[in-house]
Parts: sequence; structure tokens; C-alpha cells
Amino acid sequence: MALTLAQLADLLDAELRGDGGVTVSGLATLSDARPGEVSFLANSKYRRHLAHTAASAVILAEIDAFAAPSAVLVCANPYAAYAQAARLLYPPAPSARGVHPQAVVDPCAVIEPSAWIGPGCVIEAGVRIGAGACLGPACVIGAGVQIGAHSRLIARVTVLAGARIGLRAIVHPGVVIGGDGFGMARVDEHWEKVPQIGSVRIGDDVEIGANTTIDRGALGDTVLEDGVKIDNQVQVAHNVHIGAHSAIAGCVGISGSARIGRHCTLAGGVGLVGHLEIADHVHITGMSMVTRSIRQAGTYSAGTPLMDNRLWRRNAVRMKQLDELSNRVLKVEKIIKKNKIDK
Amino acid sequence: MALTLAQLADLLDAELRGDGGVTVSGLATLSDARPGEVSFLANSKYRRHLAHTAASAVILAEIDAFAAPSAVLVCANPYAAYAQAARLLYPPAPSARGVHPQAVVDPCAVIEPSAWIGPGCVIEAGVRIGAGACLGPACVIGAGVQIGAHSRLIARVTVLAGARIGLRAIVHPGVVIGGDGFGMARVDEHWEKVPQIGSVRIGDDVEIGANTTIDRGALGDTVLEDGVKIDNQVQVAHNVHIGAHSAIAGCVGISGSARIGRHCTLAGGVGLVGHLEIADHVHITGMSMVTRSIRQAGTYSAGTPLMDNRLWRRNAVRMKQLDELSNRVLKVEKIIKKNKIDK
Amino acid sequence: MALTLAQLADLLDAELRGDGGVTVSGLATLSDARPGEVSFLANSKYRRHLAHTAASAVILAEIDAFAAPSAVLVCANPYAAYAQAARLLYPPAPSARGVHPQAVVDPCAVIEPSAWIGPGCVIEAGVRIGAGACLGPACVIGAGVQIGAHSRLIARVTVLAGARIGLRAIVHPGVVIGGDGFGMARVDEHWEKVPQIGSVRIGDDVEIGANTTIDRGALGDTVLEDGVKIDNQVQVAHNVHIGAHSAIAGCVGISGSARIGRHCTLAGGVGLVGHLEIADHVHITGMSMVTRSIRQAGTYSAGTPLMDNRLWRRNAVRMKQLDELSNRVLKVEKIIKKNKIDK
Repeated sequence: MALTLAQLADLLDAELRGDGGVTVSGLATLSDARPGEVSFLANSKYRRHLAHTAASAVILAEIDAFAAPSAVLVCANPYAAYAQAARLLYPPAPSARGVHPQAVVDPCAVIEPSAWIGPGCVIEAGVRIGAGACLGPACVIGAGVQIGAHSRLIARVTVLAGARIGLRAIVHPGVVIGGDGFGMARVDEHWEKVPQIGSVRIGDDVEIGANTTIDRGALGDTVLEDGVKIDNQVQVAHNVHIGAHSAIAGCVGISGSARIGRHCTLAGGVGLVGHLEIADHVHITGMSMVTRSIRQAGTYSAGTPLMDNRLWRRNAVRMKQLDELSNRVLKVEKIIKKNKIDK
Repeated sequence: MALTLAQLADLLDAELRGDGGVTVSGLATLSDARPGEVSFLANSKYRRHLAHTAASAVILAEIDAFAAPSAVLVCANPYAAYAQAARLLYPPAPSARGVHPQAVVDPCAVIEPSAWIGPGCVIEAGVRIGAGACLGPACVIGAGVQIGAHSRLIARVTVLAGARIGLRAIVHPGVVIGGDGFGMARVDEHWEKVPQIGSVRIGDDVEIGANTTIDRGALGDTVLEDGVKIDNQVQVAHNVHIGAHSAIAGCVGISGSARIGRHCTLAGGVGLVGHLEIADHVHITGMSMVTRSIRQAGTYSAGTPLMDNRLWRRNAVRMKQLDELSNRVLKVEKIIKKNKIDK
Repeated sequence: MALTLAQLADLLDAELRGDGGVTVSGLATLSDARPGEVSFLANSKYRRHLAHTAASAVILAEIDAFAAPSAVLVCANPYAAYAQAARLLYPPAPSARGVHPQAVVDPCAVIEPSAWIGPGCVIEAGVRIGAGACLGPACVIGAGVQIGAHSRLIARVTVLAGARIGLRAIVHPGVVIGGDGFGMARVDEHWEKVPQIGSVRIGDDVEIGANTTIDRGALGDTVLEDGVKIDNQVQVAHNVHIGAHSAIAGCVGISGSARIGRHCTLAGGVGLVGHLEIADHVHITGMSMVTRSIRQAGTYSAGTPLMDNRLWRRNAVRMKQLDELSNRVLKVEKIIKKNKIDK
């Protein structure tokens, strides 16, 4: 897609400084961009990369504009403007309509004529696929599932258990929605399966990364509210509830019945134990284990810092003695106090 | 499925207090249940939720029975009885029999007539599928694999390397059984692949969660004994041996040749290094790293607790100085001793 | 495949001590091996297992040769020689050629006649599949992707975004290459997707384990150089760069734009935050979180050691008080100094 800088400025609601007649047709980083491409600077810390860019224009904030050798598109939120420019310059290819002859579709499924069902898809009875939805190759959609209008299942997505997915979802390959939760009752010396009879409800504008798994509820539903964004290889257990516009980075594991507020962020590799509650606007840093509810907005962390292996081995031994060390310090303090030398 | 309370009490071996003629046909939580549904209370801590339930009956322990506003089904293990009630009220839909016309089945595969092979399945030579087994859509079953009677592969399961799966397995979507282990020999400045020539042996009544991976042995087999239960996104490396009735929660990673005893539990996100042994009845809490063998039954933990990020940053610096701090305390203690003020 | 010990010694460049006319046709561990099989000993620590082996020959180092009851194949790197013996004794089955009738191949895809496209594969427009490449069942290859000669995609592999894979790749089931990275811009109270328009470039001789995900770049490419080896369930985010011959164990998560050097190893469960640089020859031990760049070759670690749960709970409380404890020790030291008793 090609646009003049004047058109682009208008669409981005940015202030153009430079020749509005120049045509651009792509985006690239400051160092990779060639003439005819637009770049962006979202963080002043990288301002030094501006000097040598060959981009025809750079999307940036007022504070960085002086340093650009090219035309600039000045705006308040350059990263958001860059995202919008990418959507304009790289519109998704129009999807086909209809059902590929090598898809297997149950006669009791209802598929809007403007939707697309790709090759190798299996669509079971009672499924409803909304207008303009696009199912890439080899998706398996189990009985009774609903997929909202304009949702895109890229490829090899499995949706089971009568899950309902809202409008404009993007679901990446290998995702499994509606698999059984991990429910077992201990009976004598073995485990008996607890049938998982709940479902999954997913709001509008949700994105789910490759190979992520979202289990159906045991009783009642697992819920992702509107605008939730989930990265790759995230595990969402049964009856988890994730509030609107929360973002979950890769490799996070969320145990059963955890309830996460709105506008939260969980960084990569975070783990939550089950049955806890996280307030709105809570941010958890990478690889932290959350073992208790968090009632207060804020940023929370756990973990030990990286060390040279020899230093770590010495310190690790001491971690096992930390309570004892603490008691020894207390004893020393008492002696000092008793001897009245604490002045 | 509908049952009278009298029938249900009989099947659960529970004591009914209430009208045995009432019919129930579903299960729900105490707060969601409507008349005609059964609920349960497995933990007295939630007893307050009993008061307002609209359930027709509640499965619970003697100690909680007094607090229910409804009929009660009193039993020793309410959670197990609830699981059984769920199996009774929600029997799995009867599976189809035969081979879907859009499955690809090698003529040298042996499939019991009562088994089902779903659309898009690929079944290679020498495969044996037992009576009543059910392979959902798009499963790939490699040469020589054996799947025991009444096992269910939900959808998109891959089984390779001549793996043998026992009776009544439940394998969820995206699982890969029998992929190559991560075996490489360092030669000069690069890695040479070590061919993985072992297989996978899985006992009876094993359940494996979505997107879990279980590698074939390098030499000899990777083994899961009877009754092992594995959650989603677990990685089981080559030649791991998991003892009967052990349960492995989501996102656990088990390195090569680790040997886990019977009746163990690994909570979410636990990691085991290779070539270690875990005794029977060992329980590891969430996200712990296990770097040594455990010879004694018990509960083990690692990790740091969650803190406010500012506090964590101060403490994290000190973790790197912990051995030094310990030595400073020792020095202080020596001074105190030398000065004979330690009384 | 059967070989005489003389032939095997020759092919392995090993010194045979024993009867060169004996025929061997398989490999097994020291304890499992039967006559007609070869075993190996790569670590002198396990030398005691030699005594009772029934193997016809053992691949080992000079230092262990005296202890074998059988013929020996003496060499400098027994593990590498064992790997080579495995490749000789278990050659991969020759792949079929052509396109399975139940594959869906776009007429604008270019597939070398010696390549194999298995049942259920979907190959989109502009794809190029090199000579001798083998795509197992149910792979999805998106528009414009290139797969190098003699690469093997075992089954159910998804490759999108015009990714280019080099020669002799081995890609295991469930892998997703070229899915969207996790790119979002915060706009008011919600997230806007940042279109991911980069691709993935993978060098020669790369192996990628089951259910691993490798995202396409946001702008520019995600890059895996030659000889990179990746285990199962690894997450590689957008614009990561992994240097040649680095090895990444299972369950590792690498955040966006991280740059890893050559000949590095990341053990299982390691996590890297984004935008950092790791020098060549860096080794990170299991489950460590890397939050800063590493400029120096060496071995690095983080994490707390496993403890009995009761001890851990006492120590965990103290981890939250560590900075305070450190300050208390400092205060004690000052008192001692002030009182001049520090001798």
C-alpha cells in the first residue's frame, strides 16, 4: 500500500514537517529503512540512530524532531502512530469466502457466507462462525463453539467445549481453547478424574499467542474479558478470570480459579497459584511466583538476580541458612544492648 | 442425564437427608446452582456459601451438613463423590465407530472395529488401535504405535516412535509423544545429533494435558507408569521415568533420565535437572528448581516470595552479597567472643 | 543395519581391541545391551556398569578400556563416536518422493521432485521446498516460505510469514515458526496491535524441538544462525538473534530483540528479558532469569536452592527482610568500631 506523506500525516493525525508529496510504501527500523520507507523513534534514548537513517520520514515526538535528517511526522504517541502506520501500509490480505473443499463441516454448523473455512478444518455440529471470520488451515472447532465476526484463527487452532469467542479475535497456531482442566480427586491410592463441564468465554478484541492453552471451567466458565492480550505458550487453567485489557507475556502459567483484574500486566514466565485475586493495574515482573492475593495496584517482583556461578553457589548455601543468620544477628544485637555499648 | 436423589445417593454410597424423589440433572457451584442441580462443598472453609444455594441437594461431609438449606448427600470424601456425580450426570457422548472417509490409514494398521478414527487423522503402518479407542480429528499416529483400548485422543495429538499407550488414556490436543529427545554431542565447534532410538511406554489410566511433550528415549524408553496425570504444557525429556499415580501440574519441565517415584506431586512450573532420583511421596511446591536427588518423602520448596518492586530491588542487591554478609556476622561474633561480652 | 566391529572401528576412527569379525546391529545401554549390540561409556564415573555388560563391544576412552569384559572401541570422544555409531546403525528410513494425494498444494508453490509432501499438508502460494526435503503429515506452510534441501519437518509443523529455513533442518511436531510477535501499543485504556511485518531467517543444520514457537520480527527478522539447536517448548520472541552453534534447552523463554552470542548454552527454564546482549560462550544454568546484558564469557546462575518446606518458609520470610538485616549488621559493625573492640 502506498501513501503520500501528506495522506499519512492526515491519517495519523500527525504534524508533517517535510514534503507532503513524497510517496511511502513500507516501514523499517531507522537503520534498515530505505528511501520510500517510513521509520519511527519511540524512545529518546535511541535518538542517536536518527542521524544516519535513510528513511523518507520518521514518526517521532516533538522532543526528538530536531535530530532527524528527513521529513518528520510529529505526534504525541509515536509508538501508537507507528502501529497505525503499519496497519495502513500493510493491510491484511483480503480473506477468501466460503468453505475449502477439503474442510469437513457438519451440516448442523452455521457459517456466515462471508466467512472462510480453510483446508483441513473440521467443524462439528452446532458451531456458529460469524461474518467475515477467517479460519486458516487445519483448525478443529468442536460441537457448539461460537466464533465471533471478523475473528481470525491463523492455522491449527483447536476450540472445544462449546467455547464462545467474541468479535475480532486473533488466535495463533497451536492454540487449544476448551481442553479439560486438571481436575482430579484423590481416592485411596489413585486419582479419579473430575469431569470438566464448564466452558470458556472470550470477549471482543482478544489476541492469543501460538501454543497457548486455555482450559474449560470445571463448573462454570473460564473467562477472558474484552481486549485481553496473551502471548505464546501461556497456560490458563480452569475457571481463571482475566479482566479487560490485561496483557500476559509468554510462558506465564495461571493456576485454577485465579482472578486477575483489569489493566494488569504479567511479564514473561510469571506463575500464579490458584484461587487468588489480583487487583486492577497490578504489574508483575518476569518469572515471579505469585502465591498470595494482591489487593493494591502497583508493581511486584520476586526472584534472585543473576550472578557469576561461583558467587551464586556461595550465596545459595547462605540462602538455606538465612533464618539462622537472622537469629544470630538478633543475638548479637541483644548482647550489645545488654552490655550497653549500643550508643 | 437425570437421576433421583435416591438413585444418586445409592450410586455415590452417600447418606441422603431429604426427599429422595426429587430429580436432578446437572451440577453447579453453590452460588450458580438452580433447582434441579446438585452442588458440593469439599472444604468447610467455604461453608458460608451453603446458606444461599438454590441447589436441590449438596454433596458434603457430615460436619457441614447442618448448615445446608437443601437436601444433603453426606459422605466421607465429598470431592470424590462430586467427581463421581459428574461422571454419572454428564456421561461422555457415545463415540462413533469406524474410520472417517477423510482419514488416511495405512493398510498395515490394525484398528479394532469398535474404535473411531476421526477426519484428518493419519495412521501409519503397523499401528494398533484398541477396542473402543477414539481418535478425534487430525491425530498423527506414526509407524508401529500402539494405543490401548478405550483410550481417547481428543484432537491433533501426535504419537511417534512406536510408542505404546495403555488402556483408557486421555490425551488432549496438541500433545506430542515420541518426538526426539535433545541429544547432541559436542564435536569441535559444533553439535552432532545423537540419534534417538528409544521409545515411550505409557501405562493404563494416564491423562496428558494439552500441548504437553513427551520425548522418546535416547536408548531405552521414557516411561509413565499407571495412573500418572499430567497437566498442560509439561515437558518430559528422554528417558524420564514417572512412577505410578504421580501428578504433574502445568508448565513443569523434567530433564533427561530423571526418575520420579510413585504418588509424587510436582506443582506448576517446577523444573528438574537431569539424572536425579525423587523418592515416592515427594511433593514439590510451585516453580521450585530441583537440582539434587530427594531420598526422603516430604514437601520441598525453593524460590523467593513476592515483594513490592522497590523492596525487592533493595533485597535483590543483598542476595548477591549474602555470603559476604554471613562472613561479616561471623566476624562480629568472633569479636564478641574474644572480648568476652557474650553473656 | 549390520556392521562388523572392524568396519565400525574404521568408520568411527576408533582403535578396536577384540575380534573384528563380530557383527553388531544395534546400540543399547551397558545394562540393557545383548550380544550383537554395541554400548558406550562416556563418563568414567559410571565405569562400574562395565563389568556386567553383555554388549559385544563398548565404545569408550583409553582410561576406561581396562575395565571392559568385552571388545572395546577406543576413541578420544566416546560420546561423539556413539552418536556416529547410532547414525550408522540406525539410518533414517528413506523418504518417499512426491506429493500425497491428500495434501493441498497451491499451483504457485515450487516443490523439488525429490521432496516429499505428506498427507494433510497445506502448501500456499510462492512456497519453495528444496531437494530431498521431507514434510511429514499435516504441516502448514504459508505463502512465500522457503524450506532448504534435505530439511525434515516431522509432522504438524506450521511455518508462516515468508520464513526461510536453511539446509538439513529438523523441525519437530507442533512447532510454530513465523507467528506474530507480541507487539502492542498502549492507546488510552486499551492495546492496539502493532502489525508484525518482519520474518524469520533460520540457517543450516538447525534443530527445533516439539511445540517450540519462533515469532516473526516486528520490523526486520528473527534470526537463528547455523547449527543452533533448540529443545521442546522454547519461546523465541520477535527479533531475537541467536548466534551459531548455541543450544537452548527446554522451556526457555527469550524476550523480544534479545541477542545471544555464538556457542552459548541456556539450560532448561531460563528466561531472558528483552533487548539485552549475551556474549559468545556464555552458559546460563537452569531456571535463571537474565535481566541484564552479559559481556563476558562464563557461567552464570540465579535462583534459590531446594529446601525442606518448613525450612524454606522460615527462610523465605527473611528474604523479604534481607536489606534490613544487612543494615542491622552494618549498625552492629559501626558500634563495635566506635567502641574500639574490633581487634
